[in-house]
Amino acid sequence: MATHRLLVDVHTHVYLPRYASFLRSRTSAPRIFSRQTTASNGSVTSEERLLILDNEPSGGRPVGPQYWDREEKLKFMDKHGIDVSIVSSANPWLDFLPAPTAHKLAEELNEDLESFCSTSPTLAQLQFKRLYGFGLLPLVPSASTSSLLSTIDQINKLPHLKGIIMGTKGVGKGLDDEALEPVWEALAKTGLVVFLHPHYGVDGSAWGEKENGHVLPLALGFPFETTTAITRLILSGVFDRHPALRILLAHSGGTLPLLSSRLASCIAHDPIVASRLKHDARHYLGDLYFDAVAYGSEELGFVSDTIGRAASFEGTQRGSQSLGLEAKRKIGSGRMLFGTDHPFFPPLSESEKWMSVVENLEAIERVDGWTDVEKDAVRGGNAVQLFGLS
Amino acid sequence: MATHRLLVDVHTHVYLPRYASFLRSRTSAPRIFSRQTTASNGSVTSEERLLILDNEPSGGRPVGPQYWDREEKLKFMDKHGIDVSIVSSANPWLDFLPAPTAHKLAEELNEDLESFCSTSPTLAQLQFKRLYGFGLLPLVPSASTSSLLSTIDQINKLPHLKGIIMGTKGVGKGLDDEALEPVWEALAKTGLVVFLHPHYGVDGSAWGEKENGHVLPLALGFPFETTTAITRLILSGVFDRHPALRILLAHSGGTLPLLSSRLASCIAHDPIVASRLKHDARHYLGDLYFDAVAYGSEELGFVSDTIGRAASFEGTQRGSQSLGLEAKRKIGSGRMLFGTDHPFFPPLSESEKWMSVVENLEAIERVDGWTDVEKDAVRGGNAVQLFGLS
Repeated sequence: MATHRLLVDVHTHVYLPRYASFLRSRTSAPRIFSRQTTASNGSVTSEERLLILDNEPSGGRPVGPQYWDREEKLKFMDKHGIDVSIVSSANPWLDFLPAPTAHKLAEELNEDLESFCSTSPTLAQLQFKRLYGFGLLPLVPSASTSSLLSTIDQINKLPHLKGIIMGTKGVGKGLDDEALEPVWEALAKTGLVVFLHPHYGVDGSAWGEKENGHVLPLALGFPFETTTAITRLILSGVFDRHPALRILLAHSGGTLPLLSSRLASCIAHDPIVASRLKHDARHYLGDLYFDAVAYGSEELGFVSDTIGRAASFEGTQRGSQSLGLEAKRKIGSGRMLFGTDHPFFPPLSESEKWMSVVENLEAIERVDGWTDVEKDAVRGGNAVQLFGLS
Repeated sequence: MATHRLLVDVHTHVYLPRYASFLRSRTSAPRIFSRQTTASNGSVTSEERLLILDNEPSGGRPVGPQYWDREEKLKFMDKHGIDVSIVSSANPWLDFLPAPTAHKLAEELNEDLESFCSTSPTLAQLQFKRLYGFGLLPLVPSASTSSLLSTIDQINKLPHLKGIIMGTKGVGKGLDDEALEPVWEALAKTGLVVFLHPHYGVDGSAWGEKENGHVLPLALGFPFETTTAITRLILSGVFDRHPALRILLAHSGGTLPLLSSRLASCIAHDPIVASRLKHDARHYLGDLYFDAVAYGSEELGFVSDTIGRAASFEGTQRGSQSLGLEAKRKIGSGRMLFGTDHPFFPPLSESEKWMSVVENLEAIERVDGWTDVEKDAVRGGNAVQLFGLS
C-alpha cells in the first residue's frame, strides 16, 4: 500500500434499483411518489419524493439518481476524494414487510449489492474495489431463526459484502430479545461487521407543535434511538457472551459516549442490573466501533476519549488507572471511521462540495491530540483493517 | 473570602414537608404511600415509597427523611464537605395540578423554601447562609400569564430564592410556546437563574420489555428530555430575543453538547429553520450554564469544550477561529457548576459516602486541561458569582 493514504467512507447509503422500484409500487410509507409542482410562470415540473415515515414533515424529501444510481455514487466519491465506500441500504430496509417477502427481497438485494460492488472499478495500484457493501437480514416480526441464519450465511459467502446494516427493532421486540441470540452468535463467528443505524427516532409528540422541518427527528431522534438500542444491547449481556461481535455505531454512537458514565452510575445503584454484567458499562465502549459522523472535532475527540478509557473500567474497576488525554485519544482513534451519510444532507446548490463531507473531514483534521497517524487511521486505515480490504 | 474555597451544590432537591404531606394525601401518581413488608422471621416493617410516574418500575422508590428533613440535608452536606446548597423542589413539582391549586401551592412552597433557607446556619466567616433555593412557578395548563408573572415577582422578592426550577412542559405545549414569551422576558429582567430539569423522559415503549429497573428512563430518558426541551427553546429564538436569560441545565445539558454540531448541520440543511436564528446552533451553548453532574471527567472536559468553542460560531461563522483545547476548557469551566442530585442515587449502605458525590468530585478533579483555578470555579466560585452570594 506504500504511502498512499486512503479515504474510506463507511457510512454511505443506496436505495438499490430493485428497492426503489418496490417503493414506487407502494401506496403508503415507505414509498416513492411523484409530485407535480406548478411554477409562477405556469410551467409544470414533476419530482420524485421519498416518504420514509407516515406524517413525515414536509411530505418527505426530494429524491433523484443519487439515491440509486451507481454512477452518481462514484461521481460523488470522485468529487470528494473518497477512494472506497462501504455502501449500505438506507432505512427503513425491510422492516415493514411480512417475513416471507422480507426474506426473498433480502436475498435478492444482497445479490444485487454484491454485483453493484463486484463490478465497480478497481482502485488503481491496489487490489481492491471502490465499492463494498453491508447486506440486509430479514429482521421483521415472525422471521424464523433459520431464515436469519441462512441469510447471514448467504452474505458471508458474497465476497464484496463485508457486513450487515441493522435497524433497532430486531424481530419486533428490539435488539435485547433472546430470540436474536443465535443471530449474534452467528455474526460473531463470521466476523461480519454489524452497522447499527436508526430509523424511527422517538415518539414524535416530543417534538411539539412548532414547524422545525426534519431538524428535531434527525438531529435528536436518530441519535436517541441508536443510544437506546446499543444500551439495551449492553444491558442484555450480549457483549459479555459474544466479545468477538463487531458492531459499528452510526453517528458516532448517538449519545452513548456522553451518557456512558451516567449509565454506569445508574447501573451501580441498581444491584440487580449490575450483577448481570461483567464490567462497568463504560468498558463496553472499547468493544464497539464508531463512525466519525459527528460534524465537530470536539465531538470526535471526546468519543475517542470514551473508547480510550474503556480498558480502565474492566470488571469493577472504576477508572482508577486513567490515562492522559493523548493516550486515550490515540487508543480511541483506532475504532473510529470516516463517513458521510451520503446521499442524505445534500448541498443547497449543485456545484458545491457537500458541507456534510467537508465538515466531517475538517472535524477529523482538527481533533486536539490526534497526529497524522491517528487522522489517517480514521480516514481510511481503520476501515481497511476492520473490513479486511487488504 | 480570602483563601477559603467553597464547595457549592447547585443540584440538590427537597420535597418540602408541605409538599410531602400533599403527596401522602393523593391516591394516584405522584404520591407517597406506605408499604408493609414481612421478613422471613415474621417481623413486619413499614416503609414509605414515592411513586413519581404511573407504571414506574419496582413500584417507585423508598423515601425517608432525606427527602424532606433539613437536618438530613445539612448532615449530608457536612459529611461531604459541601458548604452551600442551592436547593430545589424535586420533580414533578406542580405539573399535575389544576391552575388555581398550582398557583396557591407554588406561593406557599416558595414561602416555605425561603424560611427553610433563611433560618439555616450561617457559614462561618462569611456573610452567607448554607442554604439558598430555587422557587416554583405554577407552570400548568391554563395557568394565566398574570399568575406566572406574579409568582416570578414573589420569588424575586424573597431574598434567599435565587432562581426557579422548571420542567419541560411549560403550560402544556413545551417551552417553545409563545404563551411563555412574557415569562422569559420577566425572568431575563430579574436575573433569576432558571434550572431546567427533566421529569418525563421519553415514551416508555422505547425501553422494551426487559427488566432493567430505573436504569433506562434515568440514564437515557432524563437527558433526552432535557436535550429536546433546550433544543426546542434554541430553535424558538428565545436566546436571540433574551440574551440576558440565565438557564442552568441539569445533568450537564443532557446530550445537547454531543449533538450540537449535528444539530447545527441539520439546521444548515433546512433554510427555513436556519433563517430564523441569528447564530449557528453551537453558539447558544455559550449562553447557557451546565451543572457538572455527568459522573466522568471526560464528559466534563467535553462539555467545557463545547462552551469554550461557542464564541467562534457567532453568526454564520462555522468555527473557523477555533481555539486550542486548554483555552476552550478554561472558558467552558466558567459556566459549569458542581452538583450532587441528592437525595437521589443514595448509597447502597448507610455509612459510606455517596458514590454519586465522590464520583462527581473526582470527575472535576481529573479533567484534562483544568488547573486548580478552573476546578475551584466549578466546585464553588461560579455558583457564588451566578447566584450573587457574595
